[in-house]
Amino acid sequence: METFIPYIPERQDKPRSKRLTMVMDKGLSIRQAEDFTEIGALYTDFLKLGFGTSVLTPNCIEKIEIYRKADIIPYFGGTMFEVFAVRNMFDEYVDYALRSGLSMVEVSDGSWEMDRKLKLGYIEKLATRFTVISEVGSKKKDVVYTPAQWVSMMKEELQAGSVKVIAEARESGTIGIYNDDGSVNDELIARISEEVGTDNVIWEAPEKSQQAWFIKHFGADVNLGNIAPAEIIPLETLRCGLRGDTFFQFLPPEIIR
Amino acid sequence: METFIPYIPERQDKPRSKRLTMVMDKGLSIRQAEDFTEIGALYTDFLKLGFGTSVLTPNCIEKIEIYRKADIIPYFGGTMFEVFAVRNMFDEYVDYALRSGLSMVEVSDGSWEMDRKLKLGYIEKLATRFTVISEVGSKKKDVVYTPAQWVSMMKEELQAGSVKVIAEARESGTIGIYNDDGSVNDELIARISEEVGTDNVIWEAPEKSQQAWFIKHFGADVNLGNIAPAEIIPLETLRCGLRGDTFFQFLPPEIIR
Amino acid sequence: METFIPYIPERQDKPRSKRLTMVMDKGLSIRQAEDFTEIGALYTDFLKLGFGTSVLTPNCIEKIEIYRKADIIPYFGGTMFEVFAVRNMFDEYVDYALRSGLSMVEVSDGSWEMDRKLKLGYIEKLATRFTVISEVGSKKKDVVYTPAQWVSMMKEELQAGSVKVIAEARESGTIGIYNDDGSVNDELIARISEEVGTDNVIWEAPEKSQQAWFIKHFGADVNLGNIAPAEIIPLETLRCGLRGDTFFQFLPPEIIR
Repeated sequence: METFIPYIPERQDKPRSKRLTMVMDKGLSIRQAEDFTEIGALYTDFLKLGFGTSVLTPNCIEKIEIYRKADIIPYFGGTMFEVFAVRNMFDEYVDYALRSGLSMVEVSDGSWEMDRKLKLGYIEKLATRFTVISEVGSKKKDVVYTPAQWVSMMKEELQAGSVKVIAEARESGTIGIYNDDGSVNDELIARISEEVGTDNVIWEAPEKSQQAWFIKHFGADVNLGNIAPAEIIPLETLRCGLRGDTFFQFLPPEIIR
Repeated sequence: METFIPYIPERQDKPRSKRLTMVMDKGLSIRQAEDFTEIGALYTDFLKLGFGTSVLTPNCIEKIEIYRKADIIPYFGGTMFEVFAVRNMFDEYVDYALRSGLSMVEVSDGSWEMDRKLKLGYIEKLATRFTVISEVGSKKKDVVYTPAQWVSMMKEELQAGSVKVIAEARESGTIGIYNDDGSVNDELIARISEEVGTDNVIWEAPEKSQQAWFIKHFGADVNLGNIAPAEIIPLETLRCGLRGDTFFQFLPPEIIR
Repeated sequence: METFIPYIPERQDKPRSKRLTMVMDKGLSIRQAEDFTEIGALYTDFLKLGFGTSVLTPNCIEKIEIYRKADIIPYFGGTMFEVFAVRNMFDEYVDYALRSGLSMVEVSDGSWEMDRKLKLGYIEKLATRFTVISEVGSKKKDVVYTPAQWVSMMKEELQAGSVKVIAEARESGTIGIYNDDGSVNDELIARISEEVGTDNVIWEAPEKSQQAWFIKHFGADVNLGNIAPAEIIPLETLRCGLRGDTFFQFLPPEIIR
């Protein structure tokens, strides 16, 4: 069938260093996880078992196995880490992640603003046993960082061992790198992009308008996160110019009017 | 695995008298109903076959069986009752519910404002054969009750035989106990809570912000309704302090900063 | 069970000439497509494989078969047509549709505003081999047509061979026949309805408030499109007066208060 399809941007095979897509599972059943991998495996790099859902779903170990078999890297949402860390249960967290068969962990401080040294220490320690990603940005409206703070924190965390830093937006897409109405804080994003490097960042972008904005500004290969499972194919159409929002984005210049 | 999990608030086994959760099924398939029970059975007490969906889904009897086997009590949404009642088909409604294998029914007057005596009479009659819950509040923006009216109607209905009263919000969460923008009418809720008793009420709370508000104000055991099937695990994370919104809610005092 | 159900408006069997419902699949898995047909087949006439999703889902041919077996007519969203057309690959599009086993195609110019003669020519050519529906209205906020232009374009396209014309609203329901906030542009719709004929139009109406508006204004048999798979049963309750919004719509006059 491929011979009939118009040219669309090429996609690097997994494991990829860019065009990363992180999907959030908020409590799928086994069959729903299988359904997701059937349509989404090709386009999904990371699968976040969102916030503390992993301890409440009876099927977590089985789901982790399903995702791994589909060549998708599963990990616990950062809130799960914070739940253990705030209770001074770091070793128990390491045990929990290892026993669950995870190779990747997220370190965040969106709910519990921890001391910078403490956070960087966690990243360093975890990086000896896991692939680490870390998140910058608070989940709270009254905790606002300056662009310089965002940049500096992200650089420190990459330095400490994070392979990518995540820019916080919550599942709702109304905080961190976004304004209250979900619109993009473009000044902040420009600063992060220039000084931290777009390829080093995974932008949480749960809303279609946010995804389209990033693809228009940074191209098909921008790393995006907090994608709902049902939105994996619609996101890929945006990345390929197969939806109105990015229709003219990937056309050969001679046919753009 | 449990030994690794940090302390979270205890949950009474079913059947529970509080911490009740009512989920709304708007037309799930058989497999979707099974998928829901796989992840949600532990956390769900009541399953509402929303408004008039039960007569339009070809699989209703089979779904009712699935829910019952998962120890979840299924019932028809109040609009279904009103559809029969407004046509003067009360006896047919009783037949329909019995033949469908239901043990619980809902009496409401959100679409058809019926005379108080009529509604209370229906509750009394149905209470001789079913567990009855009843709903207070209109689905219409131009029908507004005072806090005193809410309280008085709820008390009358509990008196007439309802085991719980439901505070109306619709599937959208923008009416009844909420303002137009989905924010909480906290004065009204405070009055109901004080005078009717929080344990006697199921608060319809379809939006996460609404669920978080109730859990922060009344604790993990507050009764909540109109939860979407895919939101049952996210809601339970809120009840357990495993999500940003209620992260500090259930921590031992010595570690709250 | 039917004998217990109150009177609801009659529904013509498929294939129908009115009360048409078009559902949008944005990337369902095989099982999800089966789940949808289990509950939605009776109420769904057309199934749109939304925008360019068909070339990205690995299961497209199999899904098309599932929909056809359920007596639902599948077709590619108009953006897919535009993707080929803008690249001057009309013949390849015909091949792609035929090889995919489709009997219906959509011609639109929501992303690529094509010359009127070109669009009408495409409709004419495709009408010799397929059932053609065509869409009027842009996906862009800055392209606004007058009511007279809407009417004239729709009439021309029906003349050219479209069996129905679709009034654009996008998946979001905030453009074309709707205002920015999703509210209905009732003056425009009245003009289209009077001059083009309600039965000739499929109104895209993704939001419940929009669906309820059309059913209240044009009755249960109005043709509606861009319905999410999970909303097929809720929509049918609106068409049958089994939900608050249209509760009094289909009652015998003697019992309307």
